[in-house]
Amino acid sequence: METPKIVLLGAGNLATHVGLALYKAGVEVKQVFSRDLSNATLLASQMAASATNDLSLLQTDADIYLFALKDSVLSEVVDKVASLPFGKGTLGQSTALFLHTAGSVPLALFEGKALHGGVFYPMQTFSKARAVDFRMIPIFIEATTPEDTEVIEALASRISTQVTQLSSEQRKYLHLGAVLSCNFVNHLFTLCSEVLAKQGIPFETMWPLIQETILKVHQLSPQEAQTGPAVRYDRSIIDSQLVLLEGDQRLQEIYRLLSESIYAHSNSH
Amino acid sequence: METPKIVLLGAGNLATHVGLALYKAGVEVKQVFSRDLSNATLLASQMAASATNDLSLLQTDADIYLFALKDSVLSEVVDKVASLPFGKGTLGQSTALFLHTAGSVPLALFEGKALHGGVFYPMQTFSKARAVDFRMIPIFIEATTPEDTEVIEALASRISTQVTQLSSEQRKYLHLGAVLSCNFVNHLFTLCSEVLAKQGIPFETMWPLIQETILKVHQLSPQEAQTGPAVRYDRSIIDSQLVLLEGDQRLQEIYRLLSESIYAHSNSH
Repeated sequence: METPKIVLLGAGNLATHVGLALYKAGVEVKQVFSRDLSNATLLASQMAASATNDLSLLQTDADIYLFALKDSVLSEVVDKVASLPFGKGTLGQSTALFLHTAGSVPLALFEGKALHGGVFYPMQTFSKARAVDFRMIPIFIEATTPEDTEVIEALASRISTQVTQLSSEQRKYLHLGAVLSCNFVNHLFTLCSEVLAKQGIPFETMWPLIQETILKVHQLSPQEAQTGPAVRYDRSIIDSQLVLLEGDQRLQEIYRLLSESIYAHSNSH
Repeated sequence: METPKIVLLGAGNLATHVGLALYKAGVEVKQVFSRDLSNATLLASQMAASATNDLSLLQTDADIYLFALKDSVLSEVVDKVASLPFGKGTLGQSTALFLHTAGSVPLALFEGKALHGGVFYPMQTFSKARAVDFRMIPIFIEATTPEDTEVIEALASRISTQVTQLSSEQRKYLHLGAVLSCNFVNHLFTLCSEVLAKQGIPFETMWPLIQETILKVHQLSPQEAQTGPAVRYDRSIIDSQLVLLEGDQRLQEIYRLLSESIYAHSNSH
């Protein structure tokens, strides 16, 4: 398959990591759009692309328009891009492929807007300060036709060995799972680091425990791997830890609910 | 220092892993006590030790009595053991060292019971089905005299390279941190695996994301590493994920509280 020419919309964490991975895999990134021109320029300069913050100046001769934008602005930007004077297809619409990268947005976003729409969702936590190896990042794809699916699969396979077709409905649950297993897990680390910091204990102290917590669920199911006072609802420990959290009502409530939930899921009763 | 002779009280996950690690490090485990004789016998047989479920038959000539018991029975068992006819020390009490392994129980547990009391808290999540490398497990120790501290430190150093003195007060917070970073994190994996199972998606799909989540906090602070819809309180995603959780009120509430907490901790506002 010929090397596709891409216009990248977005210059945030996801856009940066995906864009650079595609560029390094030989994809031609023609242009980067961001509302913030300096962000667009910074990213574009790393991919020999041009930059713009003006959608009316978007190049209309690319093969793929990759929308890596916040969900809240995604629909609006897709609308604007779809109304640009593209080369007309048989239905009076662009033959270019429009892809979004959002876990919770259905493929139907593109209905009535683009003839060729698809999803390109890399499930990972991206921070600008940290490089990631894209080959191991699962990319979940979706399209309306086998031909579009093939194009997206070829694109995703350039940067990842883990490319899977998934429906919009299933992807919603996958994204929920990612919030639970990544975003919420990381926040528990934040809460832990704050508890420890008040005692002058560095968060690094937790690394061996955290590492083992993760290694365990590669061998046991999470339910089998569960340990701690809540499994048997050890009231003396639970109550004494709630006392330590006095003054932080929300954290107390989080502690209480998670302990109750662990107990409800345990096999010990 | 001479090799200490140990009596091990308990045959659960912690007792098993600590006992076997000490035995493999050349410590003589004389006897294993458990209320369940078959558990005691099974563990004792792996350490060439005798087994009993009768505290009155406990050997009284060991150097160290290691209490690796549930917090709820710990105090009662220590009382009973302390009243055994030990060789009398100058104060009419045993010269043997009594150690407990509990994160949230203060050193003061031994006051008025044993002349020599101490804490030997290995911070790790132990499951019988999984072997662990004890050398990297941090062990937090505490005692009332420098001499006892030295004995405990020597014992702990036989199996771990990470031995640290920590006060009872700080240890309580450390244990709370372990509950947050390990027990609660693992439970989020359970909740995630249940959400995915209903869609026929295997939990293994999450491994690359989980791995990166953990690797990130080795490089960035957890607060810097935070991503996801709650950072900017993206109401459209949050609300749609709450809809997916309809029918599970507790999980909805956990989701809501953790999202609010992430937003309250984020720098984006």
